[in-house]
Amino acid sequence: MRASQFHLFTLKEAPSDAEVVSQKLMLRAGMIRKAAAGIYSYMPMALRSIRKVEAIIREEMNRAGAMELTMPLVQPAELWQETGRWDKMGPELLRLKDRHERDFAMQPTSEEVVTDIARQELKSYRQLPRNFYQIQTKFRDERRPRFGIMRGREFTMKDAYSFDRSEEAAGRSYDAMFAAYTRIFDRLGLQYRAVAADTGAIGGDRSHEFQVIADTGEDAIVYCPDSSYAANIELAEAVSLLPGRAEAKQALEKTPTPGKATCEDVAELLGVPLATTVKSLVLATDDVDDKGAPAGVTVWLLLVRGDHALNEVKAGKLEGLKAGFRFATEVEILEHFGCKPGYLGPIGQKKPVRIVADRTVADMADFICGANEADYHFTGVNWGRDLPEPDLVADIRDVVEGDPSPDGKGVLAIQRGIEVGHVFYLGTKYSKAMNATFLDEDGKPKHFEMGCYGIGVTRILGAAIEQNHDARGIVWPVAIAPFEVVICPVGWGKSEAVRDEAQKLYDTLLAQGVDVILDDRDERPGVMFADWELIGVPHRVTIGDRGLKEGLVEYQGRRDAEAGKLAAGDIAAHILGLLGKA
Amino acid sequence: MRASQFHLFTLKEAPSDAEVVSQKLMLRAGMIRKAAAGIYSYMPMALRSIRKVEAIIREEMNRAGAMELTMPLVQPAELWQETGRWDKMGPELLRLKDRHERDFAMQPTSEEVVTDIARQELKSYRQLPRNFYQIQTKFRDERRPRFGIMRGREFTMKDAYSFDRSEEAAGRSYDAMFAAYTRIFDRLGLQYRAVAADTGAIGGDRSHEFQVIADTGEDAIVYCPDSSYAANIELAEAVSLLPGRAEAKQALEKTPTPGKATCEDVAELLGVPLATTVKSLVLATDDVDDKGAPAGVTVWLLLVRGDHALNEVKAGKLEGLKAGFRFATEVEILEHFGCKPGYLGPIGQKKPVRIVADRTVADMADFICGANEADYHFTGVNWGRDLPEPDLVADIRDVVEGDPSPDGKGVLAIQRGIEVGHVFYLGTKYSKAMNATFLDEDGKPKHFEMGCYGIGVTRILGAAIEQNHDARGIVWPVAIAPFEVVICPVGWGKSEAVRDEAQKLYDTLLAQGVDVILDDRDERPGVMFADWELIGVPHRVTIGDRGLKEGLVEYQGRRDAEAGKLAAGDIAAHILGLLGKA
Repeated sequence: MRASQFHLFTLKEAPSDAEVVSQKLMLRAGMIRKAAAGIYSYMPMALRSIRKVEAIIREEMNRAGAMELTMPLVQPAELWQETGRWDKMGPELLRLKDRHERDFAMQPTSEEVVTDIARQELKSYRQLPRNFYQIQTKFRDERRPRFGIMRGREFTMKDAYSFDRSEEAAGRSYDAMFAAYTRIFDRLGLQYRAVAADTGAIGGDRSHEFQVIADTGEDAIVYCPDSSYAANIELAEAVSLLPGRAEAKQALEKTPTPGKATCEDVAELLGVPLATTVKSLVLATDDVDDKGAPAGVTVWLLLVRGDHALNEVKAGKLEGLKAGFRFATEVEILEHFGCKPGYLGPIGQKKPVRIVADRTVADMADFICGANEADYHFTGVNWGRDLPEPDLVADIRDVVEGDPSPDGKGVLAIQRGIEVGHVFYLGTKYSKAMNATFLDEDGKPKHFEMGCYGIGVTRILGAAIEQNHDARGIVWPVAIAPFEVVICPVGWGKSEAVRDEAQKLYDTLLAQGVDVILDDRDERPGVMFADWELIGVPHRVTIGDRGLKEGLVEYQGRRDAEAGKLAAGDIAAHILGLLGKA
Repeated sequence: MRASQFHLFTLKEAPSDAEVVSQKLMLRAGMIRKAAAGIYSYMPMALRSIRKVEAIIREEMNRAGAMELTMPLVQPAELWQETGRWDKMGPELLRLKDRHERDFAMQPTSEEVVTDIARQELKSYRQLPRNFYQIQTKFRDERRPRFGIMRGREFTMKDAYSFDRSEEAAGRSYDAMFAAYTRIFDRLGLQYRAVAADTGAIGGDRSHEFQVIADTGEDAIVYCPDSSYAANIELAEAVSLLPGRAEAKQALEKTPTPGKATCEDVAELLGVPLATTVKSLVLATDDVDDKGAPAGVTVWLLLVRGDHALNEVKAGKLEGLKAGFRFATEVEILEHFGCKPGYLGPIGQKKPVRIVADRTVADMADFICGANEADYHFTGVNWGRDLPEPDLVADIRDVVEGDPSPDGKGVLAIQRGIEVGHVFYLGTKYSKAMNATFLDEDGKPKHFEMGCYGIGVTRILGAAIEQNHDARGIVWPVAIAPFEVVICPVGWGKSEAVRDEAQKLYDTLLAQGVDVILDDRDERPGVMFADWELIGVPHRVTIGDRGLKEGLVEYQGRRDAEAGKLAAGDIAAHILGLLGKA
C-alpha cells in the first residue's frame, strides 16, 4: 500500500470529550470516528487491525471444530420471551418495533436464536458435540457509554455456543474453547490472564474471563505469583486473616466518638490500628408471601473488618440474599436500629435482624464497633461474651493484596485488567427454557448441555492500546498492527536514488507477504515519523540520500529509543527475520 | 472439511410458506433459517458462499482503489435530518429510540454518515478522489418481505461512496466502479447484464443496474441483441411505431360498446386490431399556491395505444408531474369527465385538463377511444380534425418486445432480471444538503461530487440460484459454491481400499488449495448424491470397491446427466484441470 493511496488522517490533539488513552489515540490516529455516544465508524486504518483480529479468531475457532454462521441483529421478541430475558433484561437490551408494531430486540448476544436453531436442526446425539459461532455486530444500550470502543453501544463480538450430550461432554467443549482462547490471545501478542469468574445462578466452576493486563482496566484481577491461582476479584476467595479467635483481654466499654462516623476516623481518634475495627453494612430484602405479595422487609447486618470492603457478588450468594438485595434506606436504618448510619453495630440486635460476619471478623477479639447511638462506639467487644455468635459466618469481602492465596501456596497480588473474552458453562438453562432437546442413544429426548464463549473483537483493539502505548502514540503488537512495516523515504520527490531504493525494498517485502506501507507523501521526516509513531507501526525503515551515499538505511523498532543503521542490502533480510518470515 | 465435522442439514420438502425456487432450495439445503419475516440466520453452508462473494467484491474494490471501513448500523437521526431523508423516507427506514429517547435509524444505506466523515476528514483536493466502502448489514423494513433472501429486511450489502473534485472526475470514478462491477460479476460466474437505469431527480445518464438474468426476476430488462443497448424498462426509450401520421380515412362515429370498458373488449366487439384503440389514463396533481397551501387539483389525461402500458417513471419526468402525481380517484374522474372510467377519451376535453399523448398515439389516425359517455366509444378519431393536437407528445409507455431499438440498430428484446448491483452518480445532492466541502486548488471551498455504488451480497446468492438450478437442486457457479468438490466414498465404514483412496484424493486436493468436502458419513450413495445435488456442489467424485477393482472412480459434474469413469490415478489432475488449478 502507498500512503498517497490510503486514507491517512491524524490529529495533533484528541477531541476534548475523549476519556481514556486508547480512545484518544485511536481518534488522533484516524482509526475511529464518533457517530453518536458509544457508536463509531471504523476507518480504514482500524479496519485493517480488526480484520487481523478476526482472522486469528476465525482460524482458531475453526481449528477447534466450531462452525461459523451469522444470526440476525434484529431478533423477534417471541424468542426472548421464551427464556424470560425480554422482561428480565434492563434497558441495555435495545427494543424496537417494526412497521407492523411487532416487537424486536437488537442482539446483545444470541443464546435464544442459536438455541432455536439447535432445537430444529440438531435432532440426534450423533450430531453432537456442535459449536456454532458468529463474528457479528452487537448492540448494548449502555446507560453511559464511555472509554471509546471499550464500552461502546455498537460493537463487534465473536460469540460461540456449544451443544453437548452431557455435562462431561460440555466440560470437554469448555476446555477446548479455553485452549482455543489461549491460542488466540497468545497469537494476538497481548499480555493477558485467564481468571476464574463468577458463575452466578448457573453454579459450578466453569467460568473464566480472559483479561488483558492494563493499569487502566476496569476489573481487578487477583492472582498468586507462586501458583496458578487467578480469579476475578468478584470471585477470589478471602480466607480469615487470623489464626483463630484470641481470648478476650479488654472489658466492653462504651466510648464517645463524637462526629467519627467511619472506621478510619474512629481508629485515628482512639489511636488503634484500623484492623481492630468492624464495619457494619445494612442490607435489605423485600420479602414476599406464598402468593408473591409484599410481606415486609428483612434487614441484614453485614460485618467486615474496618480495612476491608464488602463484596456484593459474594453477598448475593448467601441463602436469603440470592433472590436479590439492596442497601437499606436511611429511613429503614433509623426504624430498625434507632440510630443513624456510622454508629451501627451488632450488639443488642435481635431477630429478625440477621447478622453475617466475614470470616476474619468472626475470628476477631477485643474489637471496636458502633454502639447504635450517635457519637458512641463500643471497644473491647468479644463474641459470646458481649453478643451472641453471628447468625452466619461467610466470605463476604474483597481480597486485598498480601492475603494468603486460597490454595495455600503464597500470598495474593492484584492487577487491573480489561475483560476481552469470557468462556461460560450454561448447563441446561436455555435448553430447558426453550425446550430444546435431542434424541439420545437410548431414544429418549434430552436437553442440550450448553456453553457460551465470547470475545470482544473491537474491544481488543482498545485493550491492546491501553496495554501498549507511550507518549508518542500506539505501540501495536505486530500481529494486529494495521501495517507491519512502514518505509519512510526522505526526499521522495527530489531524489531518484531514494525513490529507487524505497521502491525496491517495498517490492521485496510485498513479494514476501509483508504488510508494508510506503510513505510516498513527500512529507518532511518529522511529519512522517510523528504520524507513524502515533499510528504505531512496529517497524520503520528510513531511506535518505545521506545514508545511501554510505550504502546505509535506518531501522527503528517502535519501542526503540533510537534508530540504528544497517547496510541497505541487508535491511529486507533484517525485517523478514524480525517478522519471523525469513 | 469432513462431512461428519460439518453441520449438514437437508430437508426433502421446503416449508409451505416458501415462495420462490431460491428460497425453497436454500431452506431445503440447510443454508438459511428464518427467524422472522424477512430475517434469516445464514447457516454454515451459506456462509461459505457468502464469504466467497465478499472476498471477490473486496478484491475488486481494493484493486479499484476503494478503501474499506465500517459505518454504524444504528445511526443518529440528526444526520438523516440534515438531508431531509428522516422525513422523506417511508416506514422502510426503521426508526428506533435509545434508552434516553433519542432518535436513531437502522442504516438502509449510509450516504449521511459517509458524507459526515468526508466533510471532516477530506479537507483538500489533494485527498481526492476518495472511495470508501463497507460490506455491512443493512435493514429495510419492507412492508411485505418475500422471496426469501431476495427481498429480506435484514441483508448484507456492499455500499461504496466516491468523492471527487469535479463532475468529470466523478465520471472517472463512476467508470472505474462500472469496470470493477463488471469484473466482480464476471468472476462470480453469473450471467448478467448492465442496464441503463433511471436517474430520478439527479438527472444525467450515469445510473446502471447490474441485473442477473433469471426468468423469475422482478425487473424487465430491455436490450438489443444487435447492439450494446440495454436499459431497465423504466428507462428504455419507446419510439413511435408508426412512420408518421396517416391521412384520415374514416368518419368520426359514436359507437355503442355496452359493458365494454377495456380496449381489449372494444377491439373484440368491433372486430378490429387492438392497435387501433387508445387507452385514456387519468392522473392528478395536487397543486399548491405560492405559500405552499393546497390550491386544487389538476387533472391529466395520458393516452397510450390499447396494446401498450403506461410507464409511470417516464410520466413522472414530465413538466408538471415531476413533483409527484397520483392516479385520479373515481370521484375526481366523475367530476371532471362526467363519466365513469372505461369510457373516457380526449375528445371535447378543455383546459385545465391536460392531454399527453404517447409518441405512437400522436401518430395514429382513425383510432378508437372512449366517448366520455358510459357504454359508448368513438371510432375513426383523427387529431386536428376531431380534437385539437395534444398538449404534449412524449414517450410515456413501456417498450414491448419487437420495438425498434432507440439506437436504430435492430429490434428490442426483453428479459427478466434480478437487480444485484447499482452504480449511481449522485452529484452534489448530499454534499450540498450537508454542506460537505473541500478546499480546491484555488483555495476556495467546493462541494464534493459524489457517486454511490451498491451490491446486494446476500441477494447474489438468491439470484445465483434463481439462475442456476434444476429439479435436483442448486447448481452453483464454482466461484461461489460452498464447496468446489465433494468426494463420496461408497462403503466408508466397510472398505479400507475405499477409505484409503478417498483419503488420498482428499489430501491431494486439499494440498492444491481445492475447497473439498469428504462425505465420511457412511451413508448410502443415493442419500449422499441427493444431498450434494441439492446443495449444488459443482464436482463430485464417487469411489467404490467395484470401480476400484478396475482402478476406476466416477466423476460427475453437477450439470452432467450421467457420471463418467476415470482412472483413479487421473482424477486429481482431472479435477484440478476443471478448476483451472492444474
